[in-house]
Amino acid sequence: MPLGYAPASPFPSDRLTALFDDVRARRPLVQCLTNAVVTNFTANSLLALGASPAMTDIVGESGLFAGIADGVLINLGTPHPEQREAMLEAARSCADMGTPWVLDPVAVGALPVRSELARQLLEFEPTVVRGNPSEVLALCGGTGGRGTDSTVQPADARDAAQSLIADHGVKAVAISGEVDLVTGAEGTWRVPHGDVSLTRVTGGGCALGAVIAAFCAVTDDPVEAAVAGSVVWEVAAEIAAAEAAGPGSFAVALIDAVYAMDPESLRQRSAVTCESVAS
Amino acid sequence: MPLGYAPASPFPSDRLTALFDDVRARRPLVQCLTNAVVTNFTANSLLALGASPAMTDIVGESGLFAGIADGVLINLGTPHPEQREAMLEAARSCADMGTPWVLDPVAVGALPVRSELARQLLEFEPTVVRGNPSEVLALCGGTGGRGTDSTVQPADARDAAQSLIADHGVKAVAISGEVDLVTGAEGTWRVPHGDVSLTRVTGGGCALGAVIAAFCAVTDDPVEAAVAGSVVWEVAAEIAAAEAAGPGSFAVALIDAVYAMDPESLRQRSAVTCESVAS
Amino acid sequence: MPLGYAPASPFPSDRLTALFDDVRARRPLVQCLTNAVVTNFTANSLLALGASPAMTDIVGESGLFAGIADGVLINLGTPHPEQREAMLEAARSCADMGTPWVLDPVAVGALPVRSELARQLLEFEPTVVRGNPSEVLALCGGTGGRGTDSTVQPADARDAAQSLIADHGVKAVAISGEVDLVTGAEGTWRVPHGDVSLTRVTGGGCALGAVIAAFCAVTDDPVEAAVAGSVVWEVAAEIAAAEAAGPGSFAVALIDAVYAMDPESLRQRSAVTCESVAS
Repeated sequence: MPLGYAPASPFPSDRLTALFDDVRARRPLVQCLTNAVVTNFTANSLLALGASPAMTDIVGESGLFAGIADGVLINLGTPHPEQREAMLEAARSCADMGTPWVLDPVAVGALPVRSELARQLLEFEPTVVRGNPSEVLALCGGTGGRGTDSTVQPADARDAAQSLIADHGVKAVAISGEVDLVTGAEGTWRVPHGDVSLTRVTGGGCALGAVIAAFCAVTDDPVEAAVAGSVVWEVAAEIAAAEAAGPGSFAVALIDAVYAMDPESLRQRSAVTCESVAS
Repeated sequence: MPLGYAPASPFPSDRLTALFDDVRARRPLVQCLTNAVVTNFTANSLLALGASPAMTDIVGESGLFAGIADGVLINLGTPHPEQREAMLEAARSCADMGTPWVLDPVAVGALPVRSELARQLLEFEPTVVRGNPSEVLALCGGTGGRGTDSTVQPADARDAAQSLIADHGVKAVAISGEVDLVTGAEGTWRVPHGDVSLTRVTGGGCALGAVIAAFCAVTDDPVEAAVAGSVVWEVAAEIAAAEAAGPGSFAVALIDAVYAMDPESLRQRSAVTCESVAS
Repeated sequence: MPLGYAPASPFPSDRLTALFDDVRARRPLVQCLTNAVVTNFTANSLLALGASPAMTDIVGESGLFAGIADGVLINLGTPHPEQREAMLEAARSCADMGTPWVLDPVAVGALPVRSELARQLLEFEPTVVRGNPSEVLALCGGTGGRGTDSTVQPADARDAAQSLIADHGVKAVAISGEVDLVTGAEGTWRVPHGDVSLTRVTGGGCALGAVIAAFCAVTDDPVEAAVAGSVVWEVAAEIAAAEAAGPGSFAVALIDAVYAMDPESLRQRSAVTCESVAS
């Protein structure tokens, strides 16, 4: 880890908008093995972004599909037995075929079945891990939080994120919080975007995992994929929150805002700053 | 049953708003083992209320979670085999650990697999049963209705509700209809709230079961939990129906209205009256 | 196939509105064994139409229910093992009891498990097949497309549709595209309705399958059921698209528009023309 990593460098807005344009142009096929609560919202989020969602999560198909998908999301929110086996099949296929994949370890640490599943999935080296701080800590063997809630802060999980990178081949860890952190081997990005409304609807974080998988399809750098995906999603949340009357209309406005996002608005609103891991 | 139970006593509005404030303040953790159609809507309803939803419904986790949850909903809408086993595990844990739980016996009587499951679940003594009149009748061995529809009226199911209370340890039965009834050992409350729009979207009743589970977390009296949950949910429905252009926008407005609910509006709109079981 | 089938005859608008009124009046019970992504949207679409949805899809109940339902939808979007068995049970019951049923072969051809399932289901002679062109081709043994996408046009699948009719007892095939085609033994109808917004939310096609199942309950002619269902759904989409700010609000407005549909608007907007199979 280069201690001299330049602090406070802004993430280049030209790169952000280029990645965004690429997702729109290439329409990546994103396979989601995700929880039963958020399938519809996740699929609609990907469609609004310009990606092509497929929720293929059965044994005998999930591995095959992961071999042709441009990105894969594996989210552990409601991992029933068939889906668990399909997740392992998909992760194995991603590892074999080089498909980038995002692991969202929902409630890992707090609950045993998914904790064991996460341990097995880590062997297939997820490209990106996205979770709240307690989930990232738990994925490294720490104690998980209260369901999907989290009292610890993103900075508390940065060492755990570095362990995932050093020990499990993970390339980027996106840690959700009031200010998200995206950590890679070279440094950490702060993403000071989003809105508290994202915590008042189910699936705000789950859909972000899918959005990051879509961005993984258009760059070989999972760190910038995670940063760009987070910025796009959370700037859309800011726009939606300004219009919404409550969480019900926020969820609707968020899909509209992702769809209506234009590169210029993205450029003007984005304010990602880089900090060195030593800071 | 005290025949002299005072008729037409209003449910104390101070108590109603106190329970509502308690849910907001304590943010109860509500576990839902519910049907695949309404998971998203139910989770968003709980979040809007101020509760913390968790849809943990797999074997090996559901019992553990039920031991730490503040309230549990078991809804039989789409009970696939894994979920059936997880429901029994959760109910057993609720019985062992004293976690209040709500049983919503969707389409029981009409369909055999869930009817047998309901029979098994009754052994773990649900705190509250919530359903339409035909489902409540069927739970006592009567004949069920046409799916989730019901032609019988809530009053027709009051004797069945009393049997559930006398024979199965149930503390409160919430029977849905144009005017809901909430029956306990001591008497019956009428809840003359709600809107026909609730019958034009899927999950209006299912989400109410989750709301009642949240209220069970803030009082030791399941009857007042069922009354308060019903009033909050149905007053929100009245507010939403006044703004909505149709059932699509109603579902959105309902989440907004639950989120925006304030104690004063609740007090002004609520008009629950008590009637004796002999009336 | 009568080569002299009169081209360009308009579908009688009186018949269209009569079928629509019949669905409203009779409130058909429509059983859906459908994918996990669209259950909520599908149920709300049916409720908005005036039908009564039931998502019964477990073994031991699905066949029983299919015997009492007025129409059944079997959609292969996320066919986990329990649901696959339940689908076969329901299809067998439909064949035995004469219940009309709609098969939506999502991603058949591209993925092996559902392709084998579709082959088995075809033995029970679906009343209507609804899909995109590549799915209809694949159902006849051709090569499927990219998940739910399709690059081939509806006209490319018309011969395949005729094979389904000739060889598998199918009565009508609804092929989705910019202009939908509905093909029966006697000829093909063009349905030049709908809006591109339908492709920007998940479930636009899946819900149409359920709507067609509802119309099958009010006529013995599956071709006119498929035409009428398609027109009602797609005219509603046109109305919704004119009001919506993006795909999030479109999905909401679509449910509202289905609910608000009146026969006179339907008559004025509908413009279905018939073309002979030889044209």
